[in-house]
Amino acid sequence: MICIDKTDFQALSRVPRLNLINSCMGYKSANLIGTISKSGIPNLAVFSSITHLGSDPALLGFILRPTTVPRHTYTNILDTNYFSINAISESFIAQAHQTSANYPIDVNEFEVTGILPEWKDEIAVPFVKESPVQLLCKYVNEYEIKENGTIHVIASIEKIFVKEDLLTDDHWIQLDKGNVVAINGLDGYVKTELIERFAYARVGNPQ
Amino acid sequence: MICIDKTDFQALSRVPRLNLINSCMGYKSANLIGTISKSGIPNLAVFSSITHLGSDPALLGFILRPTTVPRHTYTNILDTNYFSINAISESFIAQAHQTSANYPIDVNEFEVTGILPEWKDEIAVPFVKESPVQLLCKYVNEYEIKENGTIHVIASIEKIFVKEDLLTDDHWIQLDKGNVVAINGLDGYVKTELIERFAYARVGNPQ
Repeated sequence: MICIDKTDFQALSRVPRLNLINSCMGYKSANLIGTISKSGIPNLAVFSSITHLGSDPALLGFILRPTTVPRHTYTNILDTNYFSINAISESFIAQAHQTSANYPIDVNEFEVTGILPEWKDEIAVPFVKESPVQLLCKYVNEYEIKENGTIHVIASIEKIFVKEDLLTDDHWIQLDKGNVVAINGLDGYVKTELIERFAYARVGNPQ
Repeated sequence: MICIDKTDFQALSRVPRLNLINSCMGYKSANLIGTISKSGIPNLAVFSSITHLGSDPALLGFILRPTTVPRHTYTNILDTNYFSINAISESFIAQAHQTSANYPIDVNEFEVTGILPEWKDEIAVPFVKESPVQLLCKYVNEYEIKENGTIHVIASIEKIFVKEDLLTDDHWIQLDKGNVVAINGLDGYVKTELIERFAYARVGNPQ
């Protein structure tokens, strides 16, 4: 095994350090956040930090660096309160990744990447038509992580749209049936295949 | 597509609600956190909420519900300041999942699950011998998410141990080469296979 010490990775140049630190803690969720600006311009951006916070109430969080690309997403969320989260499937990983480019605020990432939007009745924000799992979320709060100036945005889940064949009888969403991918580091996309679902772990269960 | 509204999932019984809300935002990282108590008892617990926070300084976060099983992990981290994060590979998913059972505080989860510990020179906390990516982390801070009483623990990465064949020339860790898994919901484990790594996305890149 190779040991890379803190002093070693602090001394790396920017890109290798980003690669190493972004890939060392396992896979990340792969989602596109859809928003709309006050003036009606749709926005779409890839996020790999969306994390479950609790089920009752249904809450999630994600991390924003206010000084980098997804700031349009943040501005739109603060202005309108709502956003969509759309699972990324294998068929559109290249387009999804391209949303991380630094487009001007008046650019509609759906148009420029070719990802088809879906508009739903009585909902102002756009969804990704091809996505097998789509969430409507509402901004709830935010916490500044003072150690590095990032913002932990907290949101509630208001509606869940899911393709019927992914949903099991016990309300689990089987993501590999929708070819949902995971992200390795900043730029690696992996396909997935279910190995096993386990029972609730109890003391004394056999291995 | 099926639409499940907030009123619908709030009305579900506990297990289907946990399944649905835990699986709707994509894959989670799959790691074992290793700690040691003040009295010297090793502890190991599966965590699916470990998330990248920043690369310079190298920071990560994870979510704790202080009232549920991993509280031994939390107590040990507060007492000793250090912990290990160990990527879960396909070969030990059953044992890793079993660490989520509610063992008494004097039980050593390494012994009871059969996962082999690894002790490294001058480091007090145990690692998982079979894990292809192991991190030594140090507690930095915590933020209470007041919306549901969870705790967002912030930690620094002090050392990274990685099997040589996973590390590319540009310091990216290719997780599928170590058979690292991802978690779908509470209890589903998936294997992974790299599809593609993309270049840094720039305005004007071809699709």
